[in-house]
Amino acid sequence: MAITVVGSVAYDSIETPSGKRDRCLGGAATHFSLAASFFTDVRVIAVVGEDFGPRQEAVFSKRNIDTRGIERAPGKSFFWSGSYLDNLNEAKTHQTDLNVFAGFDPKIPAAYADSRFLFLANIDPVLQRRVREAMPGVKLVAGDTMNYWINDHKPALLEVLKGLDILLINDTEARTLAGENNLVRAARAIQAMGPETLVIKHGEYGASLFHKVDGRESFFKVPGLPLHEVVDPTGAGDSFAGGFFGYLAAQEKQTPAAYRRAMFYGSVMGSLAVERFGTERIANLDRAEIDTRFNLFRELTHLD
Amino acid sequence: MAITVVGSVAYDSIETPSGKRDRCLGGAATHFSLAASFFTDVRVIAVVGEDFGPRQEAVFSKRNIDTRGIERAPGKSFFWSGSYLDNLNEAKTHQTDLNVFAGFDPKIPAAYADSRFLFLANIDPVLQRRVREAMPGVKLVAGDTMNYWINDHKPALLEVLKGLDILLINDTEARTLAGENNLVRAARAIQAMGPETLVIKHGEYGASLFHKVDGRESFFKVPGLPLHEVVDPTGAGDSFAGGFFGYLAAQEKQTPAAYRRAMFYGSVMGSLAVERFGTERIANLDRAEIDTRFNLFRELTHLD
Repeated sequence: MAITVVGSVAYDSIETPSGKRDRCLGGAATHFSLAASFFTDVRVIAVVGEDFGPRQEAVFSKRNIDTRGIERAPGKSFFWSGSYLDNLNEAKTHQTDLNVFAGFDPKIPAAYADSRFLFLANIDPVLQRRVREAMPGVKLVAGDTMNYWINDHKPALLEVLKGLDILLINDTEARTLAGENNLVRAARAIQAMGPETLVIKHGEYGASLFHKVDGRESFFKVPGLPLHEVVDPTGAGDSFAGGFFGYLAAQEKQTPAAYRRAMFYGSVMGSLAVERFGTERIANLDRAEIDTRFNLFRELTHLD
Repeated sequence: MAITVVGSVAYDSIETPSGKRDRCLGGAATHFSLAASFFTDVRVIAVVGEDFGPRQEAVFSKRNIDTRGIERAPGKSFFWSGSYLDNLNEAKTHQTDLNVFAGFDPKIPAAYADSRFLFLANIDPVLQRRVREAMPGVKLVAGDTMNYWINDHKPALLEVLKGLDILLINDTEARTLAGENNLVRAARAIQAMGPETLVIKHGEYGASLFHKVDGRESFFKVPGLPLHEVVDPTGAGDSFAGGFFGYLAAQEKQTPAAYRRAMFYGSVMGSLAVERFGTERIANLDRAEIDTRFNLFRELTHLD
């Protein structure tokens, strides 16, 4: 069933030990939608500037992603530049220009209203909440956030958390949000804030699922894939979210077994995304590559 | 089949957020043997001082560990004190007194000569090599080391690596030893130094197995168990090694499937060890607890 995602569609300038790219298509909503589009229909809500042209539009339309909710505004698109020269696990931000994103007021096209799945990518929690409230009919809501909102906009973020079924964040963010160093206790504290299900991402070490099965606490883990070269980590987390939530949305029932497979598909899409710069890998992916990678993850983790 | 292990038998004073212990039984050979003793016969080579009495001896004998190779020397046993108050993943060393260990010259009892498995715990690589050369009939040799030997005694360590089938080290050590930040490339570089099989431990994130199956590169991962409380991480790595190598030694053939299970048993023993101070958990363990924990690891990782 269709997912609506709200988030950024942007341009990124990226430098890593493998090279650099200037102004390549990026943004959380972009990476999320591309990854999710291999599993289900995706509809995007975002704002772009006059620099967003047919070439960028084509990246979405090639994957049958609905872009009617991408508003065109006068000015330039959101722009980010950063590097990962010392540490592939953490970007060093050089520049962030909000541009048209500064005045973003998400509008939900009528055609999106029947979406049963909603993904609130990492944007201002005030906007996340506005979109959540405008779509009361959704069945499952997942969201992402980052340290900036946790540290400086916590009250607004806590309001968003109350309306989430699933929160995806990384280790450091989980520890900061919960004010607790032990990850199991941090997860419990965050679950008490709203999201019954928590996916904590560990960068190259994979991700952990904390949820409840038949009323009792349950865990599941998926490792990171050992890669000879991480070309560009930008968008890995959003691609994980796209694989994870895309797979879940495609299932008739979101059973515990579906959640476990969703974790695998998340790690599959994240591991593929980092093999090229920006959207280069996922935008040109073939479904069979996903299945091959899924089998690799199975071999990597299963005893028999 | 029996394992001979050479390493330290020591006293540790430990402080963690969960409490403190003064002069509890510790040392790499102690933690290794206790964990391995649940899978196969274990024989220890070490040196202790006059402070090693019947109460310490009983910890080994209760687990049927052969202590005929533990030499009694005049003076005090090796002593270490450290804390994990800020970071449970890394000890802060307060004091290290080599004591009788300073003059350690490993002697191999005749009764140990038919051991087919040898574990060289983390000690001076000169001693590791001496023991390795004194036991030419062994079938499989595994070893451990630490940053101190990698940084300051590299030539001696490189000689040891040539005689190892399996090396167990942590992320940072692997990166330092290989001079390479990417773990897959670091693993390849270390494999070229001697050990065909490499187990890289990631602390709370589990461990990775890099080996060769039918001549091609193969990977396997085992996660760390999400724990509500890590009481004392001291000896977790040695307990992992004991579970891993103990299980392998107990198998008629060391097949790829046996290596995968060995990784699970390693993580099982490591996760149990940290639940109490020092040897308290493993020394009083019951075999059924190992099986229960093994099943938990299976649930944590397997799709079905």
